[in-house]
Amino acid sequence: MDPDFVVYGYFRSSAAFRVRIALNLKGIVPEWKFVHLLKDGGQQHAPGYRAVNPQELIPTLIHDGHTIGQSLAIIEYLDEVKPEPPVLPRDAAGRARVRQLADMVACDIHPVNNLRVLLHLRDDFGASEEKRAAWQRHWISLGFAAIETLLAGSRQTGRYGHGDTPTLADICLIPQLANARRVNLDLSPYPTILRIEQTALAHPAFAAALPAAQPDAE
Amino acid sequence: MDPDFVVYGYFRSSAAFRVRIALNLKGIVPEWKFVHLLKDGGQQHAPGYRAVNPQELIPTLIHDGHTIGQSLAIIEYLDEVKPEPPVLPRDAAGRARVRQLADMVACDIHPVNNLRVLLHLRDDFGASEEKRAAWQRHWISLGFAAIETLLAGSRQTGRYGHGDTPTLADICLIPQLANARRVNLDLSPYPTILRIEQTALAHPAFAAALPAAQPDAE
Repeated sequence: MDPDFVVYGYFRSSAAFRVRIALNLKGIVPEWKFVHLLKDGGQQHAPGYRAVNPQELIPTLIHDGHTIGQSLAIIEYLDEVKPEPPVLPRDAAGRARVRQLADMVACDIHPVNNLRVLLHLRDDFGASEEKRAAWQRHWISLGFAAIETLLAGSRQTGRYGHGDTPTLADICLIPQLANARRVNLDLSPYPTILRIEQTALAHPAFAAALPAAQPDAE
Repeated sequence: MDPDFVVYGYFRSSAAFRVRIALNLKGIVPEWKFVHLLKDGGQQHAPGYRAVNPQELIPTLIHDGHTIGQSLAIIEYLDEVKPEPPVLPRDAAGRARVRQLADMVACDIHPVNNLRVLLHLRDDFGASEEKRAAWQRHWISLGFAAIETLLAGSRQTGRYGHGDTPTLADICLIPQLANARRVNLDLSPYPTILRIEQTALAHPAFAAALPAAQPDAE
């Protein structure tokens, strides 16, 4: 274990899943602190955790005296303090393509389907479980259709989303697939995404980051 | 005008607003193409634009043969191909702090309140205009409270969100304030955010990027 890195996470959070993949790729074994998002009315809302991350969201990284929230900020930081193997291409245009693919998930799919949004739809809009699942399928399918178009239409797509090694694009895409399956989204319209998932899940950094493989999994 | 840069935008889009600020800071005057998000059932859904950006969202940058969507990916790209003045700090921890602040807006406030989400709430949940405004106030106030806590509690906060020069954090924060005002959010709980806004709006790069100052403004 590398006690210089402390990470707050939860097995089923796809934002924490991203950070787990990045840590595994970099060979960093942090000290994990588990924050159960459903127990005790949500442990992320407890004063102790709120002092760590005022957004009351996970994950949070503590390293070298710095406390960093937001999974993408954490992963870019990890890539800067431990550059090998890189999770971003060397060229500016490649980096932009990978960041675009990552943000398509991390901005426009995941936050709209986050736990707090689903709870708000339930409590403030009376949305049933099926209605909330349909909401999630709607936003995931919109995002996946665009990602599939970009991936299938580019010669820069390789075994992974960009070339033949994992990047931030895959780090965001693979956890989103777990969420898609949880709401029974039909994934057959996205053959390129599914092909990349197969490649990724054969990589130990991705396999070891799966929710079911975590110590706090239920 | 620098014809090497072509940007698709819309005056009222806060994601396009971010890119306008970054371009102004860098001294880049692109060729603008305007995509009206409400006319013709949404010009972003027209086949011509869909071929540029399959996500059917703005902004999109075209530069040097590369087509880049997602405002944060665009701004990071601009910062790499035209590094001066930088919109990210030089140190990894500072960059992480700025990216965290930026993502708190760009991931967890803005996409949840985006036009397409509001239209979906109206059409699929029968949400009234007032209900949709309350939805927006809810997510903006949650995000702003956390941002205010981080800004007010850090000695790294200066005249701007990080130090005394504009960064990606301010580039995301200032456009979100315009949206907050449009739904009449009470901003008095966020004095640090308001102070930074005053600083920023006195800077020509921010002032010239305001929605009302755009050629396509109504």
